[in-house]
Amino acid sequence: MKHFSDRLIEAMKAKKSVVCVGLDPRLDKIPAFIRKKHFGKYAKFPMKAVAESILEFNKGIIDAIKDIAAVVKPQVAFYEMFGAEGVGAFIETLKYAKSCGLLTIADAKRGDIGSTAEAYAKAFLGKVNFGADFSGGEQEVFGADSVTVAPYFGYDGIKPFIEECKKNNAGIFVLVKTSNKSSGDLQDLMIEKEETTEAEKGNVAQPVFHIMARYVESWGADDVGENGYSCVGAVVGAIYPAQACELRKLMPRTIFLVPGYGAQGGTAKDVAGCFNKDRLGAIVNSSREICFAYEKSGKSEEFYAEAARNAAIKMRDDINSVL
Amino acid sequence: MKHFSDRLIEAMKAKKSVVCVGLDPRLDKIPAFIRKKHFGKYAKFPMKAVAESILEFNKGIIDAIKDIAAVVKPQVAFYEMFGAEGVGAFIETLKYAKSCGLLTIADAKRGDIGSTAEAYAKAFLGKVNFGADFSGGEQEVFGADSVTVAPYFGYDGIKPFIEECKKNNAGIFVLVKTSNKSSGDLQDLMIEKEETTEAEKGNVAQPVFHIMARYVESWGADDVGENGYSCVGAVVGAIYPAQACELRKLMPRTIFLVPGYGAQGGTAKDVAGCFNKDRLGAIVNSSREICFAYEKSGKSEEFYAEAARNAAIKMRDDINSVL
Repeated sequence: MKHFSDRLIEAMKAKKSVVCVGLDPRLDKIPAFIRKKHFGKYAKFPMKAVAESILEFNKGIIDAIKDIAAVVKPQVAFYEMFGAEGVGAFIETLKYAKSCGLLTIADAKRGDIGSTAEAYAKAFLGKVNFGADFSGGEQEVFGADSVTVAPYFGYDGIKPFIEECKKNNAGIFVLVKTSNKSSGDLQDLMIEKEETTEAEKGNVAQPVFHIMARYVESWGADDVGENGYSCVGAVVGAIYPAQACELRKLMPRTIFLVPGYGAQGGTAKDVAGCFNKDRLGAIVNSSREICFAYEKSGKSEEFYAEAARNAAIKMRDDINSVL
Repeated sequence: MKHFSDRLIEAMKAKKSVVCVGLDPRLDKIPAFIRKKHFGKYAKFPMKAVAESILEFNKGIIDAIKDIAAVVKPQVAFYEMFGAEGVGAFIETLKYAKSCGLLTIADAKRGDIGSTAEAYAKAFLGKVNFGADFSGGEQEVFGADSVTVAPYFGYDGIKPFIEECKKNNAGIFVLVKTSNKSSGDLQDLMIEKEETTEAEKGNVAQPVFHIMARYVESWGADDVGENGYSCVGAVVGAIYPAQACELRKLMPRTIFLVPGYGAQGGTAKDVAGCFNKDRLGAIVNSSREICFAYEKSGKSEEFYAEAARNAAIKMRDDINSVL
């Protein structure tokens, strides 16, 4: 299998699309005809009814956007909130997306250290050892192509994921500059300029998210694919276009995962700075504006998949027009 | 139900114990007699065999330490790595611990924003809405008393958890200073002194983890229990005793969750600075040194629970001796 970044870049080129569809199945927005069917069948087992509703809904979206989007990104929280059955629907969603030729990002924002980080990394990206009592050997559990990771622990929290990336041609996306209003609480804090060595003289103060960007670029430096991108990507919100341009310069080999387009306020112009001159190097996510496009389309909810397809095409063309 | 911090403080006082037992069930260390039983029963369904092995092992530990530990802390990664069945075992472990009168910390280090953070918060601490098609109303999913949270998003990533804490008398523990070697990559970066206003003149540069500590103390300020502690706790590693003392001063109303004792190198003296003068305000976690104490005890693995109990008593007395 090819390097994750090459698989992603090739999908983007083949589909002429930088679109990532976020699969965040909010139960109250899943069309009633789907929910009613499964709650009818599993009246006494609501978790199962929810899980089946989510899966049917997701399959409809995936079928509708599989030739338009390069990648899909299920957000684990919306599955995990329905317990074991929800996690089952998450796993089945990943499987189905892959069977349709889509790359997958498990949006989990996991982060821990040592053997705990290793457990997460193997679960999401690699294979899990089921022990000496099982003759089947190591098994895939989530089988995602990539996962989002939180960086508060520093490199100890990232390294186990990078190791699994290398073993499995997978990728990670590390939070660098997020698209929420209070992202500055930590990410914009200004770090003192260092003047302790001759080389560092003249360094200027820089925000935390610049430091994170430098880390991310360096963490991926020894695992770069044929197209020049590494297995370590960055999450860079779409609502700070000036900062995106700064970050693009700091992370030339890093693929950006860009949330915040559409519902969260980011426009095509806002995200343009996330791309390299090759018009590559970033994927732009939209979740509810695509999955629940039927609400604004004036169409009945039976046509949710068609509405999602139309919204994905519109987004693809909108962003392509500024690249 | 009482405020989370009061429930925790009262459990600590009643048991004369600041011990938190980490339930990190590493499959290869679960005694063979447990694994063999379940792999025999579920030969074709290894995930189920693992989940049942984990649950039986955990119940043995919980029964053995329930009067010694104030709280247990299952680490989600070690369950999630076995997929939906693993998550099922996680939920059952929380339920069983609560039925034995133990408080619970779901060690998930979740972190996200907006409706995603809300989904995590409701899943771990509150109740989840199963939609208009389900007559049963809102249901508990994980039902933990508290959860660990990662802070990279700033307040937006914390607020939804605090809201669930207030609704459910639950708690959170926010990563402030972690016990791993590279924790300084981000946490020790020195923030510029600010001199923009008269009040701030004379401020000195301070590390990121001090800023986080100030945030944590302020985030919990309006939800303080009878014993003077808030619903927003902090994760403070045991391997940096000097920093723990600094943090204790910065966060007088904050309960510390202290990992790093034992296997990770922290001693009773190292953790002493995490406590307030009332000898309260911190709980100290140990995972493998208790759960897998049988390995070092010279006892056969049949006695894993007894070995765990002895290790928990030793830890309790060791820490009490320095308080």
